[in-house]
Amino acid sequence: MRSVSVIGIGETKIGRLPDLSVQDLISDAGEKAISDAGINKDDIQALFFGNFNGQQLCGQGHMGPLATEALDLKIPAIRVEGACASGSLAFRQALISVASGVYDLVLVGGVEKMTHRNTADVTEAIASASDVVSEAEIGATFPGIFAMIANRYKEEYGDPREAMTYVAMQNHENASLNPDAQMPKTITKEKVENSIMIADPLNLFDCSLVSDGAAFVVLCSTELAKKINNGKKIIEVIGSGHAGQPLSIAAKDSITEFAATKDAAADAYKQAGVTPADIDIAEVHDCFTITQIINCEDLGFFPKGKGPEAILAGKTAIKSGVVAVNSSGGLKAKGHPIGATGISQIYEVITQLRGDAGERQVPDAKIGLSHNIGGSAATCVVNIFREAK
Amino acid sequence: MRSVSVIGIGETKIGRLPDLSVQDLISDAGEKAISDAGINKDDIQALFFGNFNGQQLCGQGHMGPLATEALDLKIPAIRVEGACASGSLAFRQALISVASGVYDLVLVGGVEKMTHRNTADVTEAIASASDVVSEAEIGATFPGIFAMIANRYKEEYGDPREAMTYVAMQNHENASLNPDAQMPKTITKEKVENSIMIADPLNLFDCSLVSDGAAFVVLCSTELAKKINNGKKIIEVIGSGHAGQPLSIAAKDSITEFAATKDAAADAYKQAGVTPADIDIAEVHDCFTITQIINCEDLGFFPKGKGPEAILAGKTAIKSGVVAVNSSGGLKAKGHPIGATGISQIYEVITQLRGDAGERQVPDAKIGLSHNIGGSAATCVVNIFREAK
Repeated sequence: MRSVSVIGIGETKIGRLPDLSVQDLISDAGEKAISDAGINKDDIQALFFGNFNGQQLCGQGHMGPLATEALDLKIPAIRVEGACASGSLAFRQALISVASGVYDLVLVGGVEKMTHRNTADVTEAIASASDVVSEAEIGATFPGIFAMIANRYKEEYGDPREAMTYVAMQNHENASLNPDAQMPKTITKEKVENSIMIADPLNLFDCSLVSDGAAFVVLCSTELAKKINNGKKIIEVIGSGHAGQPLSIAAKDSITEFAATKDAAADAYKQAGVTPADIDIAEVHDCFTITQIINCEDLGFFPKGKGPEAILAGKTAIKSGVVAVNSSGGLKAKGHPIGATGISQIYEVITQLRGDAGERQVPDAKIGLSHNIGGSAATCVVNIFREAK
Repeated sequence: MRSVSVIGIGETKIGRLPDLSVQDLISDAGEKAISDAGINKDDIQALFFGNFNGQQLCGQGHMGPLATEALDLKIPAIRVEGACASGSLAFRQALISVASGVYDLVLVGGVEKMTHRNTADVTEAIASASDVVSEAEIGATFPGIFAMIANRYKEEYGDPREAMTYVAMQNHENASLNPDAQMPKTITKEKVENSIMIADPLNLFDCSLVSDGAAFVVLCSTELAKKINNGKKIIEVIGSGHAGQPLSIAAKDSITEFAATKDAAADAYKQAGVTPADIDIAEVHDCFTITQIINCEDLGFFPKGKGPEAILAGKTAIKSGVVAVNSSGGLKAKGHPIGATGISQIYEVITQLRGDAGERQVPDAKIGLSHNIGGSAATCVVNIFREAK
């Protein structure tokens, strides 16, 4: 398998974007990535596309060719879905296709349009990522499921409330430095802790956002990237892992430790030849604040049960941290356009490794990681990146 | 890239199956394929899964881990969607993953559960495979779109009515020999031509079925297949092509010649080192009778415009044909559980190449082809198979 690199990135502003259609979002982000890569459209051989639930939210499936039509391309296209990890799964399929030589240069994208639907419809559409019969249909939608996870975490390791609040504040602070973020504003401890209860112990500010948005990257063999020589740093994918667990919460051995994250991360670290301590910046799946804490532990950044303490000590902060987590603002404050989220995480990692992150730049960011889960961690994809030699 | 083969197959009875859940369908077909392959579940490294629209039809997304849970597996899983070509796209991703060495042995499956919903809901769900804004929302659902295609074909090449009727009769006759078929009964010319009009010129019997069903195959490196040595003929994937066109009918150069089929077939033939004349049996996408005629031309079995004449001369019949088309009964009479369809086509090709097709066995079937389109041929996947040397 040959080395593969990212040579172009693009994303929309993320947020409530009532004037932009699915096609508009795709066109905006896709054209930015193509232009950033400095390639011609004729160079693109295939599209790998993440979309979680256009079928329930927009009545629109078959998003692969919809996206190529929006970008005026006539190439093979495929939609990949793995709940909130759809974008990362699309990226991984693209990676395998280029690494194996099936294609030399491909486009990877993702989109979700959600904010035109009412809360009940959005909740139902998101709940399709759970085991609907044993969970959604008896009222266990995702805030309830992750509230249960937070309660169990408290039982096993002590109360994560203060760290959850810190995660919300830190992600909003980071988002305030990201021009694409949906909620680019700092928030106070009081605001988080006094916000309305969604599912005990999760308050409104413990929950990620409902968003419209799209993100794209251009992927090619590292050899080709060097020939194209577009003046940007070439960022290589040095490790990739994908792991799975049963869909339902009931079938999982633990809900305070996500086996899919641990397995995907182990594969990615091994392939990359690095350890958790080598990671300078990480976009970590934060559908809820508790999820970010658990994920930071499962990724090996901190020992199990010690995430809250480490986070409260500032170890995930942009400037002073040992690993900067969610410099983009994360799903919590940058936003969570589900099918685009995995690609938007990679957008941030590449931006940081290029040194182009402006005010939110992590000093000396050399090795970056993206981590994306679907459902209650039934799907997990981890990718690791570094500037190509 | 190394050689890859199919070593196990399984499918459900296809039809109106009100007593079986999505999980039941997956479990039935998946366990059959695993048992047929003679492997242990521990040998399976990943699942590639085709599902078109569980989200609108069943409120259920994230079908990858749903399927692994139904099969008691804890492995990475991914759902792939490309409308009616979802199953074949999943197969192709699996093929690339094994050929490249990412995995050695994987499971590929597909499911759709449709018959519990009313006609309006099913029509709307299927229409999500079109360009919803320019087509479905103005009333152009698929029977209307393919009626337009049939009318245009008549304009360009003469009236295909008689050949369309023959396709319906032949597929029903083949289905009458297939124990898994939804409508295993022969029909008369009068029955087809006097059936109710759906969208002029398509009658009821020109249209494929609404079905429940699942199908699975086990795929591994040919080298490993020989080691496993399960007593079945090892059937190698000797060619695979995937091509795309814009989603909307309006953006296509021709609607009587599907560029995606021609491009995908050209790639598959080239890779396999065979020509259309070498194909002994083919499962050809027949969402409507006119589609089968056009596809047989685009696959190179007959010159453009000469499909009707060749089909009426019996050239696609099981026993006397030059290429046996849809020996299973096709989408038309075996049934069309959308996400499973591409895998069910491969199930039939493998069954024929193994010589296990009983009364519907094609004599001397050596080289087989599966052809699957999504939407109005915005997506096409073609695979070619032969016994491994």
